[in-house]
Amino acid sequence: MRRFKPLLRDVGRVAKRVDRFITDLLRDVKPRLLRTAALHLIRAGGKRLRPYLCVKAFEATTRRFINIEPVIPVAAAIELLHNFTLVHDDIMDQSDMRRGVPTVHIKFGTPLAIDAGDLLFAKVYEAVLSGVGRYYSVHVAHRILQEITHVSVTLCQGQAEDILREKTLVSPSEYFHIVEWKTSSLMIAAVRCGAYIARASKADIDALSTYAKFLGVGFQIVDDILGVIGVQEVTGKPVGDDLRAGKPTLILYHALSHAKGSARRILEKVVGNPSASDRDVKCAIETIMQLGSIDYARKQARDALDRAKQALSELRESDARQRLSDLADFVLERTY
Amino acid sequence: MRRFKPLLRDVGRVAKRVDRFITDLLRDVKPRLLRTAALHLIRAGGKRLRPYLCVKAFEATTRRFINIEPVIPVAAAIELLHNFTLVHDDIMDQSDMRRGVPTVHIKFGTPLAIDAGDLLFAKVYEAVLSGVGRYYSVHVAHRILQEITHVSVTLCQGQAEDILREKTLVSPSEYFHIVEWKTSSLMIAAVRCGAYIARASKADIDALSTYAKFLGVGFQIVDDILGVIGVQEVTGKPVGDDLRAGKPTLILYHALSHAKGSARRILEKVVGNPSASDRDVKCAIETIMQLGSIDYARKQARDALDRAKQALSELRESDARQRLSDLADFVLERTY
Repeated sequence: MRRFKPLLRDVGRVAKRVDRFITDLLRDVKPRLLRTAALHLIRAGGKRLRPYLCVKAFEATTRRFINIEPVIPVAAAIELLHNFTLVHDDIMDQSDMRRGVPTVHIKFGTPLAIDAGDLLFAKVYEAVLSGVGRYYSVHVAHRILQEITHVSVTLCQGQAEDILREKTLVSPSEYFHIVEWKTSSLMIAAVRCGAYIARASKADIDALSTYAKFLGVGFQIVDDILGVIGVQEVTGKPVGDDLRAGKPTLILYHALSHAKGSARRILEKVVGNPSASDRDVKCAIETIMQLGSIDYARKQARDALDRAKQALSELRESDARQRLSDLADFVLERTY
Repeated sequence: MRRFKPLLRDVGRVAKRVDRFITDLLRDVKPRLLRTAALHLIRAGGKRLRPYLCVKAFEATTRRFINIEPVIPVAAAIELLHNFTLVHDDIMDQSDMRRGVPTVHIKFGTPLAIDAGDLLFAKVYEAVLSGVGRYYSVHVAHRILQEITHVSVTLCQGQAEDILREKTLVSPSEYFHIVEWKTSSLMIAAVRCGAYIARASKADIDALSTYAKFLGVGFQIVDDILGVIGVQEVTGKPVGDDLRAGKPTLILYHALSHAKGSARRILEKVVGNPSASDRDVKCAIETIMQLGSIDYARKQARDALDRAKQALSELRESDARQRLSDLADFVLERTY
């Protein structure tokens, strides 16, 4: 992972700037416990990948002197939007842990968690509006707000599909459809908003959107892999929970399509069974690996990330473009 | 109530136009059940008072030919925002009934209700953005979005205070503080947004804001009264629930400040006791009436509504101004 050191240093630099903006934006929130609840997941960690995408898309397409200040309010808005969805999704999905800490509703109770999510959503708009006049025109803000509103509606619709969907087996095409609204959509919004501030050309915006779409697919597949074979202390999420929940992934699709006999029986015992024992889960994970389902998923992730990198070739050469390319490589190699 | 017939006809006319806009705005929402959940409370009724305030504020301050089309997207946004808060507040407060029907989370489950609320919130912004260029400039939209975002943050903060507050007795000054964020704030936002579209003067905007502030106070006090002595079939909310919940009202403040002996005992048996019997609740209501607490609250409502009407004298004479004045009278006399 040593080759990613410069990338991760850059990611960290942007994250620090974004976090400071968010902390300032929520400084006056009262009562104090509402602020603590709203900041809970943000303080627990996270890579700030989406704001990073926003900032790099800006840098990769701007023709002016590079100073990332103009894009920070919008990068922060993207992160706030992401956190708003996490807080509410965790309630809807009854998830107890995230980023290695108890989720907001577990720590603060469901009422305050709903309210904290709503506050974060309102702060998304406050963040964008705060940069008008100073960093971008009211016209650019209008495009950004349209993008953010559009993706918010998409995320709500996707979440509802998730709630209402029959669990377990999905086809690969259905899987890619889910990932597009669930993961890619916000990454696409992130790069587009950054590009709007740079007043990028339509061709550049399209190239970045394609990049973000496939980055999202690769990211989600790797996330699914880590959900099965990751180390809880590193990922912050209990291993096996995805299997117990019967979360629809390419891995499960592959495994259930190929498992026969005793392999099939052990999978059926665990998948979609919240009370499956740790021992059975461990057995199921071994079965999945023996069936080659992890390798299959990793291959799909690599293909998607290759396509993400290809899309970048439409952009002029720049340090920012290189970082975005490195990020695609990192997404494949990451262990958390 | 015959004198309010022209007012109520006008309210109904605006409501119809706003409802059509909202239905159109949500037409393509998928899955279907998410749309049904999001529209559930809107379809259940409601007076559309807040959009009406928005429309009348526009009419009372515009200098151009009066056509209410330009203000409909924003009036609808105000109603969507109101409904978003109702859906989420009902989950947080564990309310089972509203507008005579089961609340959204009771009917559709908490996960879909949270999601439907989020969707309504996103649609608030979509509604406002949809009118840009056609009905108002991007600059006017910017002011409206600032107003809406500001009030959203206020409502979230107020809701958190509500969740965390010690129940029962509050002082009148604390009560007025609560009402200001809980009821007045959105009414103030409604009139201001309408006035922004009319490009009203600062003096007119200030007068309308004062009107809306006191209208909200009067409205809330009457709401509290109906929560104690209203008829469930008319109000749509179970009578006595406010007492059982220990909801802080001027009525309770007055009653608990004056009750002695057996009157005090019966109040203490019911207030803040979710499992109080219907018989004890009935007894408590009678006690409250005998103590003059309803009369006291009604007097406070009348005073607030008088101040609301006084504020209108700053505006030029118009039919719209007269309607706003009539609305203040109606708020005092309403039984639902």
